This record gives sequence, structure tokens and C-alpha cells, in this order.
Amino acid sequence: MNEWVKIDIEKLKTFVVDVFENVGVKREDAEITANVLITADRRGTNSHGVARLRRYVNGLRSGIMKADAKMEIIKETPNTLLVSGKDGLGQPVAYKTMKLVIEKAKKNNVAFATVRNSNHFGIAGYYSMMALEDDLLGISITNSAPLVVPTFGKDAVLGTNPISIAVPAGKERPVVLDMATSTVPRGKLEVYNRMGKPLPITWATDENGIPTTNAAQVLENLLERKGGGLLPLGGGEEETGGHKGYGLSLMVDIFSGILSGGAFGLNIYGKKGEPPNVCHFFGAMNIEAFIDKGTFKEMVDEYIYMLKNAAKRDGADRIYIHGEKEFEKADKQKQEVNIYYKVVDDMRKIGEETGVDIPF
Amino acid sequence: MNEWVKIDIEKLKTFVVDVFENVGVKREDAEITANVLITADRRGTNSHGVARLRRYVNGLRSGIMKADAKMEIIKETPNTLLVSGKDGLGQPVAYKTMKLVIEKAKKNNVAFATVRNSNHFGIAGYYSMMALEDDLLGISITNSAPLVVPTFGKDAVLGTNPISIAVPAGKERPVVLDMATSTVPRGKLEVYNRMGKPLPITWATDENGIPTTNAAQVLENLLERKGGGLLPLGGGEEETGGHKGYGLSLMVDIFSGILSGGAFGLNIYGKKGEPPNVCHFFGAMNIEAFIDKGTFKEMVDEYIYMLKNAAKRDGADRIYIHGEKEFEKADKQKQEVNIYYKVVDDMRKIGEETGVDIPF
Repeated sequence: MNEWVKIDIEKLKTFVVDVFENVGVKREDAEITANVLITADRRGTNSHGVARLRRYVNGLRSGIMKADAKMEIIKETPNTLLVSGKDGLGQPVAYKTMKLVIEKAKKNNVAFATVRNSNHFGIAGYYSMMALEDDLLGISITNSAPLVVPTFGKDAVLGTNPISIAVPAGKERPVVLDMATSTVPRGKLEVYNRMGKPLPITWATDENGIPTTNAAQVLENLLERKGGGLLPLGGGEEETGGHKGYGLSLMVDIFSGILSGGAFGLNIYGKKGEPPNVCHFFGAMNIEAFIDKGTFKEMVDEYIYMLKNAAKRDGADRIYIHGEKEFEKADKQKQEVNIYYKVVDDMRKIGEETGVDIPF
Repeated sequence: MNEWVKIDIEKLKTFVVDVFENVGVKREDAEITANVLITADRRGTNSHGVARLRRYVNGLRSGIMKADAKMEIIKETPNTLLVSGKDGLGQPVAYKTMKLVIEKAKKNNVAFATVRNSNHFGIAGYYSMMALEDDLLGISITNSAPLVVPTFGKDAVLGTNPISIAVPAGKERPVVLDMATSTVPRGKLEVYNRMGKPLPITWATDENGIPTTNAAQVLENLLERKGGGLLPLGGGEEETGGHKGYGLSLMVDIFSGILSGGAFGLNIYGKKGEPPNVCHFFGAMNIEAFIDKGTFKEMVDEYIYMLKNAAKRDGADRIYIHGEKEFEKADKQKQEVNIYYKVVDDMRKIGEETGVDIPF
């Protein structure tokens, strides 16, 4: 049985936009959100693709997420912004803020923004990559629900708090880092759970803080806040560098959750029935403020060749550059995109619930 | 036998400054460098302390490092700088550049600098922490000699490329992340080698790219460029997140080595007899551009308490905040600092070679 269904991208987009409009989101914001979600699916990050539609629709219908939110610029300087997402969808406020950051960086070399009172914004890499259109360096980070256990802790306090940095290249594809600061994001545990596969021991701990291979148990513990959770990049011990992943996660939270005056750690999604107050941080840097951008891009190409041409270990035939796998997947999914059958089934239900025809 | 010797800090500083002056470094630069080195020893990062004096003195005497280097500002805007270290000691150019970055951030919210043609600058955290005096966020990163093997590679291409971020707190100590992007820095292998201890399997690979526990072999392979090297944070496999540490290291190199128009990857220390062209990147951000700094510092304190008060796993009684262990060590070493006896012996030799009395 093929568990993946090929769906025409234009039809999928029309459907997603219509669903959002039917729950009160204005067309522009619906389109931005649909683009971010479908881009994730095209790049193979299905955990952050249209699979998220269910949560967003539920949030919007319950009123926890505000369908008619209009982002507010709280504070502004020539190279900084403080923005409130007003509890609306994360994607539109993230997209519009990054647009403003890019304009400021083009005029004033470097620019940064923090966003508070937002929601899950999808893949961090979408926004960092927006800077590439103008040959800028792009930065996008966000905090997220507490799922990650700090070194020596028993319970999750930190989010998987991803970091994305996008770097333009010359003849080669851009270098795009887009990584959770945990060893893996929760979505990976869901995949292993679906397959009935034991987890690698550096991924997660049980409710007593002991590393475990049981995906179902960890997912249940996280959902019910019974203790345990994901491990930071580097695993559960200082000896393997777990405190570094923990530190990166903490810094992401400080730059997004605290520098915006928003929420951090356990306070994100902290109170049932209240908005989650997810916070983001965006940056753009103009290469030309430092060196000629042609030279920069040539050097990035050179670095890519240096890595690609380096000796491979036994059994390996390729060294990857960050973003490369995702660009290749996206190239293969220009007209149609693979969606997991359960997600398709759920979209059909969402269509019925929101009164939208399902065109696939 | 006690392998650590307690040395009076003032005497140690006088000695280090005199040594640098006697090999042609001007007093101001000698003092900056001595401060950075001794701060590392006080914080317990002895691999980056006065143990480095031998390499610096050899470099300066051979002329590979320029004792009389005067840093040059190549390009400047109100919030960016491109600097050349002119092949001098890394510490003075790093210190002076960070001072300029701080001044720019105070006036213009956020500021960044890249530095090329520099040398090893000591602990990255020294410079990020300079921003704390003005309640700014500080960032300090540097590329370094190729010691780290990219995921699926056999040979070292990347440096241990550390990242340091310093964040002011209120009543609590600042949060200071200062981490190599490899699982461990080379210094840790030297420690295990000295103790005859087998390495944890996620630290390094042998000359065939196979994970190994043999510290002596890895160190020899690195020195002679026989293959293998340190593993990125996350280890040798994608499954354990090794590609993330590799990506962080790559980004550090792009922001320091490429954005400065300097050297990267295998080109650092690339040609025998030529300057290594180590490159740095510094940043400072004014909290007040985003939110009130009092509020910010209170929130950081709150986060520290949230982490400190979180449940501990079995056998653990404390969750650490980044920088905490180092601040505690430094507090205990205000008058005297512990130096490894072999380093003391070597300093005596350096004293003889450079005609400086040894006051300890």
C-alpha cells in the first residue's frame, strides 16, 4: 500500500486558502500561510506542512488563534522592529515582518526584529530564505512549546527552538541551515512511532529522565506533561555535548521570547485556553556592507566544492551541503506534492467541517 | 603528586606582558592578550590560557605572526566594520574591534564586524562578555584550523569554530554560552590523552573516518594531516544530529571567514610558512531597541529560576546555566590561578628564551 498521495499543488493551495478564508482569515494571510505550509511539504518537511492544517483550523475556530488578527508594530528604529502578532496565525506576521527586516537591511546594512504574541510559524527556513532574493544573509528563529529536557533535568522546559540561516551562493544553490536545537524534532518521533521502530537512545527520555527507545511513551508523556521529553542536540550527557544543544535552545528562547517581551520556556502554551504567545526573531544582513557580494558568492561556491570534493568515509559517496536535500525534493515536487494519506483524509474532514469543496 | 601549580595572578600577568614585549609586541597589545589568556585560566578553560603562550611566542619570533601589527579598518558604516588584523595577535584586534562594535550598537541599536588576517584569539567568551558592561547582548565567533570532519567525510575540513553569546541578567549572573561546534574541542582530547583515558565514541574518528576511542592516534593524525579528526556536535551520524553540528560550524566559517573576505575551511593555516588568516565575527545588540532593559533582565532572571527549579533526573542535584561553572571557577581564582605544571615548566623556558625573569 502506498501511504503517500500525490496532490496537484495548485489544487492543494486553492483548498488550503479556501479553508482559511472560511474560518475568517483574510485572503492575503490565507495565501501566505498556504505557501509556507506547501513549501514545507515540497521540501520534504511534512511535519510542518499541510499536516498542521488541523491544529490551525481548530485553533482559529476555538478563538485561541485570532483569524482577523492585524499585526502591530510596537516599536521601530531604522534597523530594528518589535512586533505583536496579536495572536493570529504565525505565518503572516512572520512573512510580513521578514519583508520589513529585508527592506531595513537593504537601506541600513543589518536589521533585526522580534515578534511576540504569535503562533507556530511553520518552517523557519521559509523566512530566512526570503532574504536570498535580495542576496542578503537571512536569519529566522522561533521558540516553541516546551518539549526538550535541559541537561540533568527530568522534565521538558525548553522548546525544540529551531535556527535557520540562509546564505546566497554563486553558481551553486544557497546554503540553508534549518535545524531544531533538539537532536530531533517531535515529528521524527511520530514517524518512528508510526513505523513501530525503536528510537535511537540519544533522542528522548522517559518520565524519570532516563533515555528511552519507546516513541509512543515519550509522545504520550509530552502530551500529558507526565515528564521526560526530547533531548537537546548532543544528547543527555555533558560528555556528548548535550549542554550545548541545551544552550542553543536557551539562546533561541532569549532572542525570541525575552527580547520581544513575550513568553519563554514553560510559559509558551503555558495556560490552557489562553493564546500560546509563541515568539520569533528575524534578521537580515547586507553582504555589501562587508565585502563585494560577487566575491562572497564565489567564496561560498568554493567552500561548497571544497566540502563536496573532500574524501568520503567508507560506505559514503556524498557529503551534503545544508539545504541541498530539501532543494532536490522541492525540484521534484513542482507540480505535485506527496502528502501522507492520513493527512489527506483529515483534510477531507476539514473540508466538510468548513464547507470547502475538496478538489483532489 | 599535585599536577596543578597555584600562581599569583599579578605576577603571572607581569610575566606574560614582559614576554610579549620582549618579542616586539607593544605594551597595550601585550596587556590585552595577557588579560584574555589569564581570564581563560581563571574560568577553567586552561587549553585557551597561558598554555597558548608557547605557540604565540614561536609564531611571533618566527615572523609568521607580526609582533608590530597595526589593525586596519578596511570598511566602515554606522553599524558595520570590516577589519584586518594584519597577521598580528588575535586578542588585540578582537578586543579593539569588539570595543568599536559596542560603541556602534549603543548609537545605532545593532552592529557587527568581521575580521580577517588575524590569529587565534583565545576564548570567544571574552569578547561577547565585553558587551555586558553596557547591558548589551554580545556575540563572538571565530573560525579555526581544520580539525572537524563533515558528516559522511573522512578528513577534517572544518574548524571547531566556536560560538559565544552573552546575555545580561538582573540579580543573577549573565548567561554566557561559549561552545565549540564540535562535540569537544581538541584540548579535551589532550586531557584524555594525558590521563590515558579512552575517548567517548562520539568525539573523534580515525584516519579512515571510523569512530575511535584512541586519543593519541587522533591527535597525531590531526597534527600530521593523516585523516580523521574531531566529530561535529551530534557525532558522526545524521541520526544523532551530526549534520547539525557540521552546519553550525559551516555557518561560523561563512560569517567569519567568508563575510570578511578572509580564509575558510582547509585554507586556514593552509600553507606552511604563511600566516594562518584566522577570521572572526563580532556583534552587539542594544536591548533597549526592542524592550526596556530592566524588563529584559527580570525575564532572564525568571528563566534562570525556571530552569534551576525544574525537576532533576535521578542522581542529579543541579541544572546549570551556561557560564555558571566558569563564573564560579573565576570567583575562586581571583588572586591565584591553577596552571598545569607542564605549562609552568614551559613558561620557565619561554622566560629564558626571551630574557624575562620568572617571578613565580
